[in-house]
Amino acid sequence: MSREVFYEISPADFFYRNKDIAGFSNPARAIYSTIRELIENSLDASELYGYPPDIYVRVTADSGLSTTENINVYTIRVGDNGSGVPARHIPSAFGQVFYGSKYKLRQSRGTFGLGGTMAILYGQITTNSPVKVISSTGDRAIHEYELMIDIQRNRPIVLKHKSYKNEDGWHGTVIEVKIEGDYPRAMPKIIEYLKQTAIVAPYANLTFVDPKGRLYRFERVTEEMPKPPTETKPHPYGSDVESIKRMIAVTPCKDMLSFMTTHFHKVGRITAEKFLAFAGISPKKRPKSLTNNDIVELVKAMKEYDGFRSPSADCLSPLGENLLKAGILKELNPEFVSVRQRSPSVYSGYPFIVEVAIAYGGGIPKTGDILLYRFANRIPLLYDEASDVSWKVVHQLINWKHYNVDVQTMPIAVFTHICSTKIPYRSVGKEFIADIPEIEREILAGLRDVARELSSYLTRRRAIEMEKKRIDVFERFLPKIAKFSTELAKEKQVPDVKPLLKKVVKYGAEEIDESQEK
Amino acid sequence: MSREVFYEISPADFFYRNKDIAGFSNPARAIYSTIRELIENSLDASELYGYPPDIYVRVTADSGLSTTENINVYTIRVGDNGSGVPARHIPSAFGQVFYGSKYKLRQSRGTFGLGGTMAILYGQITTNSPVKVISSTGDRAIHEYELMIDIQRNRPIVLKHKSYKNEDGWHGTVIEVKIEGDYPRAMPKIIEYLKQTAIVAPYANLTFVDPKGRLYRFERVTEEMPKPPTETKPHPYGSDVESIKRMIAVTPCKDMLSFMTTHFHKVGRITAEKFLAFAGISPKKRPKSLTNNDIVELVKAMKEYDGFRSPSADCLSPLGENLLKAGILKELNPEFVSVRQRSPSVYSGYPFIVEVAIAYGGGIPKTGDILLYRFANRIPLLYDEASDVSWKVVHQLINWKHYNVDVQTMPIAVFTHICSTKIPYRSVGKEFIADIPEIEREILAGLRDVARELSSYLTRRRAIEMEKKRIDVFERFLPKIAKFSTELAKEKQVPDVKPLLKKVVKYGAEEIDESQEK
Repeated sequence: MSREVFYEISPADFFYRNKDIAGFSNPARAIYSTIRELIENSLDASELYGYPPDIYVRVTADSGLSTTENINVYTIRVGDNGSGVPARHIPSAFGQVFYGSKYKLRQSRGTFGLGGTMAILYGQITTNSPVKVISSTGDRAIHEYELMIDIQRNRPIVLKHKSYKNEDGWHGTVIEVKIEGDYPRAMPKIIEYLKQTAIVAPYANLTFVDPKGRLYRFERVTEEMPKPPTETKPHPYGSDVESIKRMIAVTPCKDMLSFMTTHFHKVGRITAEKFLAFAGISPKKRPKSLTNNDIVELVKAMKEYDGFRSPSADCLSPLGENLLKAGILKELNPEFVSVRQRSPSVYSGYPFIVEVAIAYGGGIPKTGDILLYRFANRIPLLYDEASDVSWKVVHQLINWKHYNVDVQTMPIAVFTHICSTKIPYRSVGKEFIADIPEIEREILAGLRDVARELSSYLTRRRAIEMEKKRIDVFERFLPKIAKFSTELAKEKQVPDVKPLLKKVVKYGAEEIDESQEK
Repeated sequence: MSREVFYEISPADFFYRNKDIAGFSNPARAIYSTIRELIENSLDASELYGYPPDIYVRVTADSGLSTTENINVYTIRVGDNGSGVPARHIPSAFGQVFYGSKYKLRQSRGTFGLGGTMAILYGQITTNSPVKVISSTGDRAIHEYELMIDIQRNRPIVLKHKSYKNEDGWHGTVIEVKIEGDYPRAMPKIIEYLKQTAIVAPYANLTFVDPKGRLYRFERVTEEMPKPPTETKPHPYGSDVESIKRMIAVTPCKDMLSFMTTHFHKVGRITAEKFLAFAGISPKKRPKSLTNNDIVELVKAMKEYDGFRSPSADCLSPLGENLLKAGILKELNPEFVSVRQRSPSVYSGYPFIVEVAIAYGGGIPKTGDILLYRFANRIPLLYDEASDVSWKVVHQLINWKHYNVDVQTMPIAVFTHICSTKIPYRSVGKEFIADIPEIEREILAGLRDVARELSSYLTRRRAIEMEKKRIDVFERFLPKIAKFSTELAKEKQVPDVKPLLKKVVKYGAEEIDESQEK
C-alpha cells in the first residue's frame, strides 16, 4: 500500500537542499551572505577578547569563468586579527554544520553555528573548490588547511594541512572561499552593510577591496571598546523540562539547594530556599531522584514563582548612547539626533537591552517614509524589514502625528539596536526579529522618548522661526518709528532701539542667532 | 589564548534551541503550528494516494494544569484516512528531525521533514509527555506507539509498542500530542487556516472540535480530486556539482549518453547527444571517470546549453480554475471573480505553475486595503505577508489605478497559488516565498490578466449604472409625453412607448435587469 521511501538526511544535506532559508537564495544574495557571515565571525573573534577589530575583505573576479552575464566566480578573502581557531577544531568548525563555539548564553553575532559553513558549502556546490583556512591562536604555529565538506555525512574532508612557525605571535584567521555570485547586483547591499557595520562598530577598522580594485576604508574613530560580553547561566524562568533533565544528567550537586544555586542565574541560598518551599520540594532531595513528573512540576513552579530576581544584564555589551550617537553623526550627519538606552529587561529568562535613536534633517535623505536602521547584537539587518518587530513599532504602533512628525515629507531616520544572550531571530538568515511582547514594549517606550525630544525640538524650531518673523517686523519698523519720532520731536539724536528690541524677544538671542545660521 | 569550547549539536538540539525559526516562538504560535503541521501531513498522506481526505482534529484543554492565564496544556488529536506509515518507520518518522519521505522532487505540502517532529518535540519540552501514534497502511495490523525524542542524540525513544488486528482494512494515521499552548490567542488564526484550507481543498472533509466542544465542519463540495502529484527527475538546468557527484556515485550507467538520458528530466537520446557535443564530452566516456574539473565544466555547460526542453509540469497538481473559483465562491461569495491558471514555467530547473484570482464585492469586507490570500502547494500562508513575493507584486509592482481600482475604498481580494516540486520558502516555518524572478513574473502576468477583467467589469458596471439613469429618464417622461400628445391629438388610445424605449437602450435589456437585481 505504502510505496513511500523513508530516510534520514544530514544537517549539511538539509541546508544544501534548502539554501533559501539560510540566506543563499540566489547568486546576489549568496555573495552578500558570504561576506556578511565571514565578517561577523571575524568581529566576534576579535571583540570577545578585547582586540580592536582589524578586518580585511577582498573580492576578486575569476575572469574567464563567467557563466552568464553578471554571474561570475569570485574569490572572497576575509582576514582578521581575532583569537584564531585551535588547529584541531578547524576542520569541523568550518566543514561541519551545527558545530561551533557559539551554543551558549552569551551575546554574539553568530548564533546558529551555520553561516561560515554555509558560505563554504555554497562555494563548494557552485565551484567545486575547497576553502582555504589559515589561523593561529597566537601560539607557536600557524595552521593552513584546505577543506571540503562531505555533505551527505556532514563531515569535513581535509585535503591539505600545513603548519608554519609563528614568528611574530600573530593571532587571527584568514578564510579564502571561491563562490559563484552576482557581485554587481549585490554591491549596493554590501556597501550598505559595511556602512551600517561602521555605525555600530566605530572601534573597528574595516577595509574592503572590490572586484574592480576600488578600496573602501571604514576607519575606527575611537580606540574605546565596549566591554566584551560574558557567558551567563540560565534563568529559572527560561527553563523547560529538557534543560532541567540535561542539568540533572551532569550535575555534581547532591541536593536540590545546591542544584538551584549552582546552575541558575541570580539564585542565591535564600532565593533557592524560598523557591523550594514554594515548589514543595525538600532542599535535601537528590536531583537525580526527581521523577519525570517531579521535573514537570518543578518547571511549572519556576514559571509561577515571582520571587526570582531579574536576570542581570552585566553579561551584555550594549553600544552605549555615546557610541551610537557618534556612529550616527559620523555616517549621516543629521541636524538633530536623540539617543536612548533603555534599562535592561528580560523575555523568557533571557536578558536584553534596547537602544534606540531618532535623527532628523541634515544628511538624512527625504524618502517619503521613515528610514529604519535595525541592528541586533551589533549586526545591521538589511532584509525583510516589514517582518521585523521594529517595523511593527514604527509603522503600526506609533502615531507620528502626535510628535509633529509628517512621515511623508520630513527626513527622519529611526535606529533600533537589540542586544541579548539570545536574539529571537525568525529566520536562519538572521534578518528579522520576532515580535516578542517584552521586546516590542521596550522599543516602543524608547522610541516614544526620543520622538518626544524630536517633537519639542521641532516645536521650538517652529517657534523660533515664528519669532524670527516677529522680530523681523520689529527690526524693520522700530528704527523707522524712532527716526520719525525724533524728527517729530525736533531732536537730533535718534534713540537706540536695541534695548527695546531685546525686550520683545521671547527666546534667547543666541538661539535666534544659531537658527539664523542654518 | 583561545578559551572557546567547540562542540557539535544534533539537528533536534538545534531546533530545540531555535524554536522561533520553525514557527514555535510562543504558546499561541506553537499550538497553531502544531495543528497546521499535523493537518498538512494528513492531507499529503491522503491525496498522494487519491483518497479523498477525511480529517478529524480535536483540541481539549487539560484543566487543572493551567500555568498562567490562557496558557494551558492541550491535547491535540489529528486523525486521517491517509496511506499510513509502515510500522518500522514510525519511530524515526515522528521522533527524529530530518527523517522522512518528502526529500524528493515532488509537489507536497511538507518539504522539510520537520513540522510533525517539531510539534512532538515542543510538546515534550513543555509537558514532558510522549506522543501517541496509531497507524496502519491497510495491511493486517494496526500499530500503536508511544514515543519521546532523545533531543541530544536526535533519536526516537520507544516507550510502548502494541499491535492490533486490522479487521476492516483501515488505513490512516492518528497522532495525539500534549503541548503547552495559548488556544484563545491562536483561535482566530486556526479558524482562518481551516477556512482557507477548505478554499484550496474543496474535496476534503475537515472536522474540528475546539476546547469548548464546539464543532466546525468544512464539508467537501466535490468528490473530484486533482490528480496526485508525481515524482520527477532533476532537470539539467537545476544541477550543481554536488548533485552530479551523487548521481555518479550510484549510477549503473556505463557511458555519458545513458547517464544523461537515465538521470535527467526530459533528456532523450537526441538531446543528450547534442548536449554532450556542445559540452565537448564523449558520449562513450564512463561517468565514474569524470574528474572534479570535468564535473565543474559539465555543470557549467548544463547551465549554458539552451537546447534542453523545459521541465514538464505533468508532475504538478495545480488546483485548476474551476476548483479555485468554486472554493472562492463557496467561502467568500463575491459579486465578481476572475481566475487564471498560467502556463507551466520553471526556475532553477524546478517546474512551477501559478494560479491567481481576483474577487470583488459581495461577501468581501472593506478593509482599506487589498485582502491577499496566499497559497503554496495547497497550504494557506497566514504569517509574514509583507515578506512574500505575492505581497511585493500586489503592493509594489501593480498600479491599481490603471485598473480602475481604488485600493482604499473598494472590497477587493487577491488570491495567489504557487505549486512546484520545490517551493522556495524563505523560512523553516513555511510562511513566505522568496521573490524568485521567474515566479514574480508569472504572478504579475496572471494578476494583470484578472485585473484587466475586473477593470472592464467595473467600467461596464459604471456604464450600466449611467445607462440605467438615462433609461430612467426616458421611462419616466416618455409615457407622459405620449399621454400628453394623445390628449393634444384628441386621441383616446395612448400609443405603446415600449418599442421606443427599446430603441434608446444601448446595452442588452437583460443586463440592465440583472444589474437592477443587485
